[in-house]
Amino acid sequence: MSTVRNILFIMCDQLRWDYLSCNGHPHLETPHIDSLAAKGINFTEAFVQSPLCGPSRMSFLTGRYVHSHGATWNGVPLSVGQTNIGDFMRPFGLRCALVGKTHMEPDKEGMERLGIDRMSHLGVQTEQCGLEPVERDDGLWPDKLVDPHYAYNKYLKSKGYDGDNPWHDWANAAEGPNGEILSGWYLDSNHLPARVKEEDSETPYMTGRAIEFMKEQGNNPFLLHLSYIKPHWPYIVPAPYHNLYGHNKILPAVRSERERENPHPVISAHMKHPESLNFSIDEVRNNVLPAYMGLIKQIDDQMGRLFSWMEAAGRMADTLIVFTSDHGDYLGDHWLGEKEMLHDCSVRVPMIIYDPDSAADKTRGTKNETLVESLDVIPTFLDVMGGMNDKEHLLEGKSLLRTLRGDQKSELRDAVFAEIDYSFKPARKYTEKQPYEARGYMIRTRLWKYLLWEGFEPQLFDLNSDPNEFNDLGRSPTHSKIRMELHERLFHWLRTRATRTTISEATVRQRTGGAPKTGIIIGEWSPDETIKGDPESGYWVE
Amino acid sequence: MSTVRNILFIMCDQLRWDYLSCNGHPHLETPHIDSLAAKGINFTEAFVQSPLCGPSRMSFLTGRYVHSHGATWNGVPLSVGQTNIGDFMRPFGLRCALVGKTHMEPDKEGMERLGIDRMSHLGVQTEQCGLEPVERDDGLWPDKLVDPHYAYNKYLKSKGYDGDNPWHDWANAAEGPNGEILSGWYLDSNHLPARVKEEDSETPYMTGRAIEFMKEQGNNPFLLHLSYIKPHWPYIVPAPYHNLYGHNKILPAVRSERERENPHPVISAHMKHPESLNFSIDEVRNNVLPAYMGLIKQIDDQMGRLFSWMEAAGRMADTLIVFTSDHGDYLGDHWLGEKEMLHDCSVRVPMIIYDPDSAADKTRGTKNETLVESLDVIPTFLDVMGGMNDKEHLLEGKSLLRTLRGDQKSELRDAVFAEIDYSFKPARKYTEKQPYEARGYMIRTRLWKYLLWEGFEPQLFDLNSDPNEFNDLGRSPTHSKIRMELHERLFHWLRTRATRTTISEATVRQRTGGAPKTGIIIGEWSPDETIKGDPESGYWVE
Repeated sequence: MSTVRNILFIMCDQLRWDYLSCNGHPHLETPHIDSLAAKGINFTEAFVQSPLCGPSRMSFLTGRYVHSHGATWNGVPLSVGQTNIGDFMRPFGLRCALVGKTHMEPDKEGMERLGIDRMSHLGVQTEQCGLEPVERDDGLWPDKLVDPHYAYNKYLKSKGYDGDNPWHDWANAAEGPNGEILSGWYLDSNHLPARVKEEDSETPYMTGRAIEFMKEQGNNPFLLHLSYIKPHWPYIVPAPYHNLYGHNKILPAVRSERERENPHPVISAHMKHPESLNFSIDEVRNNVLPAYMGLIKQIDDQMGRLFSWMEAAGRMADTLIVFTSDHGDYLGDHWLGEKEMLHDCSVRVPMIIYDPDSAADKTRGTKNETLVESLDVIPTFLDVMGGMNDKEHLLEGKSLLRTLRGDQKSELRDAVFAEIDYSFKPARKYTEKQPYEARGYMIRTRLWKYLLWEGFEPQLFDLNSDPNEFNDLGRSPTHSKIRMELHERLFHWLRTRATRTTISEATVRQRTGGAPKTGIIIGEWSPDETIKGDPESGYWVE
Repeated sequence: MSTVRNILFIMCDQLRWDYLSCNGHPHLETPHIDSLAAKGINFTEAFVQSPLCGPSRMSFLTGRYVHSHGATWNGVPLSVGQTNIGDFMRPFGLRCALVGKTHMEPDKEGMERLGIDRMSHLGVQTEQCGLEPVERDDGLWPDKLVDPHYAYNKYLKSKGYDGDNPWHDWANAAEGPNGEILSGWYLDSNHLPARVKEEDSETPYMTGRAIEFMKEQGNNPFLLHLSYIKPHWPYIVPAPYHNLYGHNKILPAVRSERERENPHPVISAHMKHPESLNFSIDEVRNNVLPAYMGLIKQIDDQMGRLFSWMEAAGRMADTLIVFTSDHGDYLGDHWLGEKEMLHDCSVRVPMIIYDPDSAADKTRGTKNETLVESLDVIPTFLDVMGGMNDKEHLLEGKSLLRTLRGDQKSELRDAVFAEIDYSFKPARKYTEKQPYEARGYMIRTRLWKYLLWEGFEPQLFDLNSDPNEFNDLGRSPTHSKIRMELHERLFHWLRTRATRTTISEATVRQRTGGAPKTGIIIGEWSPDETIKGDPESGYWVE
């Protein structure tokens, strides 16, 4: 009997896998996140299915690859036909709730086509990817988009922060020498403290909302997706977090001159974006990275607050906790900014899982190099709650429960896959591609990373001899065999996708050869002789 | 200004492309279908997306490949998330109706999840693939499945045919010498006439229902899917059609001893099914083929009736007509029965399109060797009604309208694609495959057919030197280059599927690089300098 009654699924936004002390950052101490790792398993080889908020999160929240769910970029709606985390988990009696960000874009056209009232309970559930929006906040509120009902702005106003959009003017802006508002969108002000008081900034606010939810929930079981907006843009953090880290604490960009010499056309196009040009300038990094690290440090402190509340409330004893991120951040590595390409700093994420059940005692505090995909999260949740519920045909990941409980004998997988649709970026124009062809695919094993770029040569990296991914072997004549092998594996992966979504594997098995049971008789000669001239054949029933 | 106001989309079931006199059958005269070809274009190289009713029809009715719509086999529901022919065509003011078969299996689970009442107007529309079921009849009614409300049975009963299931006992059974009912399911009685009177059998009945619908419709525009059950199983036809063709009118099976020597494992597994064993026996063919041909002859006569009614009613002047089939029939070719494998006799179908508009006058009566896919039907309908309606991102085929009107200058495509999921067949067990891996893919150009069978060697046929597909070059050492080429093309095809269903290509183009317009600013240094240190860069707006 499992002790797990609740699930807390914590996600950060744009948190690199290696910006935690438990994952080796030499200057950024994250003792509270580390404490979760000490209680659980730290999966050090975890990957997302796309290095961008929307598609990555839709993979986390549906358990399906981007090719299968179709929401390939931010703002691309998740088809109403996709099954979501709420659909999977509610049957176990969990209240499935959201505090923070999902980047879910509802399929309004599909909903209209199917007559789903957006204001109904079901409509809200469908629009929110199956999660009750206790607090939905995607954290990007420029003046042009700000919602007059936006809850965090209401909170800020109630605390006396003025203006129409205190999210921007206080929480995501600094102040100039003459009191002028310096927008946190611009990197030049990221070294300054945000104008908001620390306790009123987004990360503590969301933590408070999560604690309130759990209080309200009492002993009623829940799945809570606590999904922080930070350390994502705007890179700005209130005092004292804004200047905890001096320039000597900033790790140098992982980049090589060689990468600029004859870059792959898709990489080259991305190098032309402003974020890449700016993050390639050391003074910009020096301005921004202390804020990025400060935002993470603030999250860590909030994890301390959250976990001690949970400890006191008894929730650490009955709650499975996942701590992860939706993707990383280039921060100037490889002469790139943002995410969206497929280097490890972008597709690799922290993945710490704490299982309170005593069956997991033998794995506590271990690091685990199993290749993990974001797709594994929902199967793990299903498994810990009692089973896959006949949903394997929809889910493309694997449960980590046996690993958590030390019972996984064989390798879970030997490769992970990711995809990117860069058709919304200027890079598409630079590369002269049509929207449907601006696509890239990754297969990454322990030893190799192969990237297929539609319409271009592939890229290949030897992760063993070149863990920094500096040396692109995409055109290396001596590597054609491994390229062909990985290319074929990508094809195999694509052609075995879970596209048959409306019928379970078990039902298929049951029905195989089962037509005669329905009375539909195909191709038999007579009631006595299935095959003409062969009386023995009369017994043919599959 | 197009004169086309209505669409009549006629489909037969299991009608081989070459069993029409206009397509070269030497003994089976089909003057009425030929007359349609004489008024329109006869597309002689048309292919379905899967050689099986359900998946093929779902491709016709959604405009999407099987990989994209997911309904891979009979009885696999079409996901509620898929857009259907009604969704596409109703916006043009057409009443979209069905008389006959669709093999649509509703996604009851998805409908329940989304709160769609099955009894509501919308529910019925969703369950019927967007077509108002004036008469829905999938034509397979063994006693175990028969619906007490089944309309055709009611009709038969009203005509005095007795028993609980006159569909079986009269329309699909013959009579033995002592008055016993001989089921048409069994091939041994297929040479006998069905017990039903000819005018009460399924084909004339459905034709009558179509005419009634058009009468009722008057001058109100419609799309009618008139979808015959025949010449599909049970192969049985009333007099006089049962014995119009003597054994000397039956074409020999297209097969070679060589094919049985060392067959491909998937073919070999299918050769073990009863339909294959029986159709490999000439006496069985002699018993069944006259009925198969008679059923086609009856359809042709009903086409005569239909077209002359339409002529008299003025409908030939304002109705675009498509005549096609959902797949072919092996009839013993290649030592196989039924369909389901990927030889031309199974995946190639008749495709005759009549466009009443005078713009099409210059192509009337022509044969056209353009490679056509079943996916082209919906885009053609949209195009003739006024445009793609911003739906290109969902549709994987191409409009044939320019071809119909003689304006298509370049080749429409140079290859067609099909898929088969054989996981429901005994062959899956014989080949020891799991349901998710019992899959095959076809790419067929004018010169080559390449079949990829998951977990097995591929097959390759040189259609130029071996149009009968006897000589499998799947392992031929001298053909590795062409196999690799076609293999890669299949991969390319799969990775450029229309999986991003919720946003149009036009919207993507509009949004490319458009974030600054929303106020979301990514990666810029300051309001004046997009790139630090470069004042000129301040003008960067995509």
